[in-house]
Formats: sequence, structure tokens, C-alpha cells
Amino acid sequence: MSIDIPRGTQDILPGTVEKWQYIEQKAREICRAFRYQEIRTPMFEHTELFKRGVGDTTDVVQKEMYTFEDRGGRSITLRPEGTAAVVRSFVENKMFGNPTQPIKLFYTGPMFRYERPQAGRFRQFVQFGVEAIGSNDPSIDAEVLSLVMNFYQSLGLKKLKLVLNSLGDTESRMAHRDALINHFKPRINEFCSDCQNRLETNPLRILDCKKDRNHELMKTAPSILDYLNDYSKEYFEKVQQYLTDLHIPFEVDANLVRGLDYYNHTAFEVMSEAEGFGAITTLCGGGRYNGLSEQIGGPEAPGIGFALSIERLLAALEAESVELPIEQGIDCYVVTLGDKAKDKSVSLVNDLRLSGVAAEKDYQDKKVKAQFKAADRLSAKYVAVLGDDELEQNVINVKNMETGEQEEVSLSSFVSYVKEKLL
Amino acid sequence: MSIDIPRGTQDILPGTVEKWQYIEQKAREICRAFRYQEIRTPMFEHTELFKRGVGDTTDVVQKEMYTFEDRGGRSITLRPEGTAAVVRSFVENKMFGNPTQPIKLFYTGPMFRYERPQAGRFRQFVQFGVEAIGSNDPSIDAEVLSLVMNFYQSLGLKKLKLVLNSLGDTESRMAHRDALINHFKPRINEFCSDCQNRLETNPLRILDCKKDRNHELMKTAPSILDYLNDYSKEYFEKVQQYLTDLHIPFEVDANLVRGLDYYNHTAFEVMSEAEGFGAITTLCGGGRYNGLSEQIGGPEAPGIGFALSIERLLAALEAESVELPIEQGIDCYVVTLGDKAKDKSVSLVNDLRLSGVAAEKDYQDKKVKAQFKAADRLSAKYVAVLGDDELEQNVINVKNMETGEQEEVSLSSFVSYVKEKLL
Repeated sequence: MSIDIPRGTQDILPGTVEKWQYIEQKAREICRAFRYQEIRTPMFEHTELFKRGVGDTTDVVQKEMYTFEDRGGRSITLRPEGTAAVVRSFVENKMFGNPTQPIKLFYTGPMFRYERPQAGRFRQFVQFGVEAIGSNDPSIDAEVLSLVMNFYQSLGLKKLKLVLNSLGDTESRMAHRDALINHFKPRINEFCSDCQNRLETNPLRILDCKKDRNHELMKTAPSILDYLNDYSKEYFEKVQQYLTDLHIPFEVDANLVRGLDYYNHTAFEVMSEAEGFGAITTLCGGGRYNGLSEQIGGPEAPGIGFALSIERLLAALEAESVELPIEQGIDCYVVTLGDKAKDKSVSLVNDLRLSGVAAEKDYQDKKVKAQFKAADRLSAKYVAVLGDDELEQNVINVKNMETGEQEEVSLSSFVSYVKEKLL
Repeated sequence: MSIDIPRGTQDILPGTVEKWQYIEQKAREICRAFRYQEIRTPMFEHTELFKRGVGDTTDVVQKEMYTFEDRGGRSITLRPEGTAAVVRSFVENKMFGNPTQPIKLFYTGPMFRYERPQAGRFRQFVQFGVEAIGSNDPSIDAEVLSLVMNFYQSLGLKKLKLVLNSLGDTESRMAHRDALINHFKPRINEFCSDCQNRLETNPLRILDCKKDRNHELMKTAPSILDYLNDYSKEYFEKVQQYLTDLHIPFEVDANLVRGLDYYNHTAFEVMSEAEGFGAITTLCGGGRYNGLSEQIGGPEAPGIGFALSIERLLAALEAESVELPIEQGIDCYVVTLGDKAKDKSVSLVNDLRLSGVAAEKDYQDKKVKAQFKAADRLSAKYVAVLGDDELEQNVINVKNMETGEQEEVSLSSFVSYVKEKLL
């Protein structure tokens, strides 16, 4: 009996992986321009980090984590998101001591959540995210938003919507929290059990409930925007002004609440407006997380970031029928006829490869015709034919598969001939 | 209290991560030339895969796996190595049906083994590996070895040793196995308890024991090379002939046994001979694994591959004092003086970045002098200075930090001016 891949995970195979490579290359390029440097944290962390960093009352922590004991009896969790670990690393490696602040980091890599697998939702999925830690300057909020919007646009996406909210600072949030409790409490028994629990632990997240989203109290719930204190209001206005300066269109939605506990001030999502994209239209989420560093034991270090799923990005590209400009095909296939020529092809192909030419040969003792077919399947730009006769005369026949042009060249100049032709 | 990184894992931070990026780029380039395409399998698999694929009696499976139950009660294991999952994917995705054989794949990514952390050994480490599945042609063995040796050399390593052995086919192995049992059995009580267990389960691995390596019976143990049947002997000779054709030096060591069960025929290691490299000199290991596909429930599909640790590669580079040619520094830093200029810099820097220029500005309300210092720390090639006065006149002052040359340019031509200078 064969063994299957674990449910909710996928292999990324040749034919598809080139898209991932292209997207990641774009991410690296834009991060270089915006001066976000890569960080790689482990695939797992002490469970405590996510309880403190993501929030004990969140669905992610309560229901979706891959938590287990390692052989030393420590509770370990496969990372469900990237921010908590990046902030943990910021604290542990004392990056707050670096004179250049904020520290601007990006990451790409797998995240793990035990959810019911469905279209566009995997248990292992890949996120690209950035974090800017150590600055309270609203221009960094705008910068992060510019980065993600331009990343999407550079890949060819057009039907995008940026939705923005402010969750305010602690004072504003507490005032809003009280208003929410007063609003929902009298009729909380009409809500789902999750919401009933949320009323005292985290009433803001009632607004995010999928089950109760059509309850009439939802529409009339107090808006955070009415509870922002002066600092929070000015901060939010400045972010919006910068976005306007940068010609980045956005909508403000006072009901935008992110599923993770650590957000305050700026919170945002990027949605796809492509037709037929499906029920879940969020491509990217993020926001400001002042206080997170303190929560996991570090010094004050205000931060902001986003995370986006590459799987959902691929779905959005498909929904908009965007073809990424991916180069396929090899440079040169060496066809041989005869045993000596076959042996010689091993070093010929090796020479091509070592000079950077993508080269291939037969490994299955195929006839000449079948070798040509194989070259065709691999979209070889050039096919070189070597028989035992040619080998004796130290020549090889090189054919340009696009033009049909053929030339006989000496074996000693073969590699440089092919290299020159490819320029 | 702050939360630490899990023991035996590491953060890869800016300043070091550039080396990883450079190495991975080299890996991608050489794989393109050799036509190995990327595959990405999940970080975890059903535990059964590694029991069957890596081998129930190996240290890896018996002692070192991160195995746990997921929320659905299935036994899941973080992958301790890459080959079993790639072959699982080959089988599950019916790659054996592809007319172009062998299927040539590469991967890079984290692997997980619960070992005692020590210099050069991590519980999460990163491997680059290739697998060629579906061919019995000895030229593919030579190709795989050429790929890895040239990969190392392209990075600047010189003190390398390739050690080669043949473990033969099943018939040869069984004959050798009997000879080993006869050799060790009379005095097996002088060996460690692991070896006593290995005598019946896998006597070949006694040769690999670290505790008993100086026992006199080790030196006189029967050599696999004396038990190779004709097919195995010819196969091994052909591999060696191709290596000679490719000018790849190697040594044959009949005691080379790989720690994983699935190898047969060609087995190899690449060692560092750099002085002071430490006790563990193996950089890369690999070999042929005909039969592995069948073992995990697939069709016959002979394969060969290698895996190497990036951590150990970095240690080897250090031991040989190789400096990778990594580009540091940003292209342009925008210094501002005055509130209006500061606001304007947000869009100026954004414009630079969107045209591909790595640009930075201040986020901390620093004085001009401190901004220049920051530009210096970031090794900015150009520094542009914008005061409220310049802004009124729609100009900006651009300084080449290498030559000291300065020029005043109009704000509207600023981005194209910088771009041109950088060419």
C-alpha cells in the first residue's frame, strides 16, 4: 500500500513551482528596494510564545495549532503565523539596540494551522510577510501598505481593494470595549456560544463572527472610529494622508477587525475583487502591534506588518487570468547514435552545464528519433547530434530548433559555440 | 519574562542570511543547468513513510524523529530527511508515467532531528538535495556527483574529498551480510548493545558504529567490494569511468556505509579536508536507492540523490576563509530638513523604490547630521538632501558618497537621475 501526503498539505511540483519561484523573486526584489531584510525563524517555537503573542482567546491558539511535546517534554508548536516569532527574535537578539530603527524584516515560509481543508485553505500554507519594528512614525504604516500593493501590482493583479481601519491605542480600545459590552450584553443569549465567551474576554471579536454576522445588533454596534482619542485619530489621519500622497486608493471600514489579538491603530486587509474568486476574498492582512514586544517580555517596540498567503495570491492570479512571464525549456539537448558517442555525451553535456548552459541527454538508451522527441518535450532551443562517425572526426552537428538552421562545429569549440548562440 | 528560541534551532538574521540567499541562488543556477527542477514537499509526513522509507532500524527513525499526533489522532513526523518524501511524491503524483525519465528534482528546506545540539548540529537544519528517479544508467550517478562537486567549487571550496563505495545490489548485499554476521557473531559480546542489536537486523551498520570503531574486528571485516556480483561490479566500474572522464577525483572506501537503510550500489560522501574543521567532516552524503519506491508502495523506480547541509557548508566556507561576494548597502538615502521636506520624502523614497532603487529615509525625527550617519551605516551609494527651501524651488541635492561629487537636480527628474547614475 502506498503512503499519501498528509491531509490539507500539498506538494508543489515542477510546472507549478516556477510560479512560486517567480513570486518569491519579486518579493525579494521589492523588499530590497524598500530595505526589508530577510529573517528566517524556526518552523516551531515554544507554545507559550503564541499563547502570549497571538492571544489566548483567538481561534488560532484555541483550535488550530499543531502543538506537541518534544522528546524532552517541552511544549512545542508549529508556527501558525510569522509575527510573534519575528518579534521574539527582535527581543532575543536585542535588535532594539541597533542604531538604525525601525528594524525592517521580511520572511517567506510555511505556516501551520489545523483547519478543515477547503478550496484555498491548507493546513500548511506559505506566507510572505514584512515587519517594521521600532518606530511609531505613520509614514512606516503607509510604506508597508505601498509595499504590499505594489507587490501585487507588479505581478499583474488589478482587481484589488485596500480596506483600512484604526483600532486605536489602549485607551481608545478600552472605551470602545466598554461600549461594545454595553451594546451586546442585554441580548448576548441570542448569539453563538463563542460570542458569549468573547463578550468578556474580547468583545471586539464578536464583530468578526461568521455565525452571527447577520444579527441586527451587528449593524448598530458602536464604531471604534467614534472612540478614538486625539492621538489615535491624528495618527490615523496621517496614515491616510500619506496613502493619498502615494496615490494608493483605500476604503475605511470601521468593522474591520483582524483575527489576532495583537493589533492596534492601523489594521488593514487587501481583498481581491476578481469575479468568481470565491467566498474568502482576503488576500493579505496586517496592522500595527504596539505592545506585542512587551507582551512577550521585551522592551517597548512599536511594530507594524502584514502577511499574505502565496496560495491565495496564486488563486487571485488565476481569477484575473494573469499569466506570469515564466521561462520554460532547456538550452541544448545532445542526441547520440552509437556507444562511443553515448559515452562521450556524458562529458559533453557536463561541459555545457558547467558553463551555465541548461543541457540534457538521454538516460534510457532511446533511439535517435525518440531522443529528438524528448528534446522537443523539453523545448530545447538547440539540439546537438553526435554519432560515432562525427566523434571520429571530432565534430558535432548543432541545430537551432526555432529556425531549423544547422551547423557542424568542432567538438573543441562546441561549448563556446552554443554559449554564443544563446546570448 | 521573555521567551527563547527552542533549543537546537537558530534564527538566520540579516548579516548572515545574505550568505544563505547567495548559496541558494547558486544551487538554483546549477540545478537549472543540470535540469533538476524544484519540488516542495510538506514539512511533515505520515510517520509510516519514514519507518518504511528511511528504515525502522536506523538511529534517525528510532531516536531522532519529531513524531506527534495531530488533532485528528494521526501520527505525523516532521521530516528528518528529504528523499522519502520526494519518492512518496513521485509515486503519489504518478511521475513514473512521464515520458521523460528519470525525473530530476531538487529541494532546499528545513529538516528536523532531535539530537543533542553541538557545534554544526542543529535540531532544525537546512538541506539542499537532488534526486534523479527512474533510471539505472550509471551516467546519472556521475552526473549527480558532478553537480554536487561543482556546486561546492562554484562557491569557492577547494579542500574537498569525494569518497565512494558500492553497496551492491540485493544479491551482493545478502552475501556480504552473511559474511559480516559470520565475522562478528563469535565476539559480538565485546560490542556495544546497539551493535548487538544490529547483528541480526542490519549488520552493515556495525561498520558505522562510533563506539566500537577501534575494535580489532572492524579492520578485518569482510569488504563489500569482495562480494559484489558481476552486475554490481560492472555498474560501479562504469560510474568510476565516467567520473574519470569528468575529471572528478575520488577515493574508494569499502567501509563507507550511509546511516540510512535505503542505499545500494553507489554510496558516497563529500568531506572537508580544511584544517580545524572539526570532528565531523562530512559535508554531503548520498547514494543510489533502487527499491525505495517499491518499499513505500510504488512501482519499480531506481533512484539516486544526495543531501547536504547548508549549515555545514557555511562552516566549511569559514574553515577555508572563503568570502562570498555579497553586495551590501543601499542605493540612496534621502535626508530631510524641515517638516514639509520630511512629508515629501515619503513619496520621494516611494518613487525611488518603485523604480527599483533601494532607498531609505529617517523614521525617528533625527537631525540632519544623524541622518547622514544613518546613511553611512547603511552604506548608501548616494545621499539626497531635501530642505524646505529646496522643496520650494522643486530641487534636491544629490551626493555621490564615493566620489563626494554633488549635483542639484529638479525633483521631477530626481528618480531618473539616480537610476541613471546607478547603471
